[in-house]
Amino acid sequence: MPPIVPRQEIEQRLGRFQTALRAAEIDAALIVESSDLYYLTGTNQDAHLVVPAEGEPVYLVRRDLGRARDESPLARVEPLRSLRELGPAVLAAAGEVRRLGLEFDVLPVANYQRYAKALPGVELVDCFGALRPLRAVKSDWEVGRIREASQQIRIAWEAVPELLRPGMTDRELQVDIEHLMRSNGHQGPCRFRGMNGEMYFGAVLAGADAAVPSAADTPLGGWGPSPAIGRGPRAGAIVPGGAVSVDLVGAIDGYLADGTRTYGIGPLDEPLATALGVCERILAEVETLLVPGTPWQLPYERGLEIAAEAGFGDNWMGSGPGRVTFIGHGIGLEINEPPFLARGLDQPLEPGHVIAVEPKLAFPGIGAVGVENSYLVRADGGPENLTPW
Amino acid sequence: MPPIVPRQEIEQRLGRFQTALRAAEIDAALIVESSDLYYLTGTNQDAHLVVPAEGEPVYLVRRDLGRARDESPLARVEPLRSLRELGPAVLAAAGEVRRLGLEFDVLPVANYQRYAKALPGVELVDCFGALRPLRAVKSDWEVGRIREASQQIRIAWEAVPELLRPGMTDRELQVDIEHLMRSNGHQGPCRFRGMNGEMYFGAVLAGADAAVPSAADTPLGGWGPSPAIGRGPRAGAIVPGGAVSVDLVGAIDGYLADGTRTYGIGPLDEPLATALGVCERILAEVETLLVPGTPWQLPYERGLEIAAEAGFGDNWMGSGPGRVTFIGHGIGLEINEPPFLARGLDQPLEPGHVIAVEPKLAFPGIGAVGVENSYLVRADGGPENLTPW
Repeated sequence: MPPIVPRQEIEQRLGRFQTALRAAEIDAALIVESSDLYYLTGTNQDAHLVVPAEGEPVYLVRRDLGRARDESPLARVEPLRSLRELGPAVLAAAGEVRRLGLEFDVLPVANYQRYAKALPGVELVDCFGALRPLRAVKSDWEVGRIREASQQIRIAWEAVPELLRPGMTDRELQVDIEHLMRSNGHQGPCRFRGMNGEMYFGAVLAGADAAVPSAADTPLGGWGPSPAIGRGPRAGAIVPGGAVSVDLVGAIDGYLADGTRTYGIGPLDEPLATALGVCERILAEVETLLVPGTPWQLPYERGLEIAAEAGFGDNWMGSGPGRVTFIGHGIGLEINEPPFLARGLDQPLEPGHVIAVEPKLAFPGIGAVGVENSYLVRADGGPENLTPW
Repeated sequence: MPPIVPRQEIEQRLGRFQTALRAAEIDAALIVESSDLYYLTGTNQDAHLVVPAEGEPVYLVRRDLGRARDESPLARVEPLRSLRELGPAVLAAAGEVRRLGLEFDVLPVANYQRYAKALPGVELVDCFGALRPLRAVKSDWEVGRIREASQQIRIAWEAVPELLRPGMTDRELQVDIEHLMRSNGHQGPCRFRGMNGEMYFGAVLAGADAAVPSAADTPLGGWGPSPAIGRGPRAGAIVPGGAVSVDLVGAIDGYLADGTRTYGIGPLDEPLATALGVCERILAEVETLLVPGTPWQLPYERGLEIAAEAGFGDNWMGSGPGRVTFIGHGIGLEINEPPFLARGLDQPLEPGHVIAVEPKLAFPGIGAVGVENSYLVRADGGPENLTPW
């Protein structure tokens, strides 16, 4: 398959990562996780990428070498037949290595132990801390992909009034939307970083089920198909007056977009109608804060303030112990990237951050409403809404 | 949600796991991975499960406590508000702990380091080695769930002749099949154990694209939607005489079934027609080996032998460097469970093993064919085919 990530893009990413490695006094990084590999090489193979703090990266590929050579602009793509060859190959690629960086946030202990054995005397340290902030700042090319992913969401939102039939369940609506998004180029699997990360198109949730908390780190949970999964729709009835939250994740070329609209058959019952208006007001106000320099937690705290003033403080971002303490999350190759617009975080927003902002209000036993867009933080002027509709 | 896993099932699993922990001289296990949590508790929460080698397990739940109590038959389900409470909570639940078991094959290094800090003086060791063989032996209840999952596959296979339109791509056919399976109860996400594990309904692959190798540990790869994913269909044309491999994963209540049938518009061209006959012959012969005591590698080696006799040794289980050295894999809550019917493994098959057996032959530039069923190994008599059609 021809490459899709431009050579210049890969070169810039690798150059910035090498600068970050030097700043962290890491001599080389050994990258193995899918989204990091794709970010730094342009292809997703069964492989190890060695990035020395200075000099030429080497992509050591177990499978498939031919595809890695075709799909990646890297100059050095070489076979790795067995893990026994890894130690020597890393040292050959990186020269003298005292401190080797690994992706500690996802790398399993068993793999770590194998690397420690293969590279005796080398200090193993985390390097995802050096890569993560770079991945959070999107290039124009990346923003273009996210815009494309958002088209899948827009097409689905537009279709909901036609798809929605009285008597239908939220699960049935979600299944039809999945088919529509897949027919419009959705890639299928979406990446949620971390051991138990699971992401499946977002969630369509109707009525009281939308306010059911789950293990997922999302404001709305849902029962899910069974206790094995435990999130998303089960079979919530879509009835006149009830709210239907349509939270969708578009995905193409690895990049995700995330957005929510709330639907109903006829006007929403109270308190849902008023609450939806409050969510829209919060999003409009928070939009003005999505500029470089804003502390990450400010949009969350401002949203809570407005919700509380409207009498919805207890409903803010989920219900009871299921509530979350963020109003937004960065998005890109994974659904859970920085910046996290969350309580207690006061790092500043930067130009190039792409953030899904999702004020939501949940009413146990009644339902949940909300609205969500993905935004690009720009160097000058306000943010660009990447999921307009 | 009411529990779905019967209490007796959970009690038996926990009892066997405790026996295995004692045999491994592990004083307690601390379980955090989704499929293991669901297996041992009946529910999938954001939680830690402490299983002492003797005595009452304690499910320490961050979110959602109410659902954990409703969905799990465990007697002790308790809140865990912060990781700071974890060390004391583990010791309170397990008593004196010298050796604590963790899931080393999936637990990230960063989490491991937090546990090491929270439990100073405790030796941390792997415990998935003790759990994995137990999970590989399915109960009648589990086999029932896998049978249900296989119904989704059967319905899809039956529908293929109606769904198949000339001029259609393999991706279009897959998208329609996904919709049909979801409409028949498919749970959506499927679990593939390991850091980069990704599983999405199996794969529909037509023509030469089916023989394209990928990073995935599967006999057939496919280009995938982009280099970001790199497996599965892209847009392979379905043409008269070409082969369409329809490899599907059904999923319900967490349990998976896996099967493949090969289709065409009219008769298959050569060598595909002959090769498909050879795959069917291999499967029929290998079926007779799916009895207790058979060494795991024997079905693989026997399949290779028959393929080579038929002149297809170079096409066996993939093409070129993309080929795999197994003919089957265990299946249950995850797609990659033991037993692995793979070269070099001579452990014996046991009653209760459920295995997807998939003889396949790939012809670069031409296409690929194969057949796959999921089987239950029984204590007496031959295996039960769980994916008959």
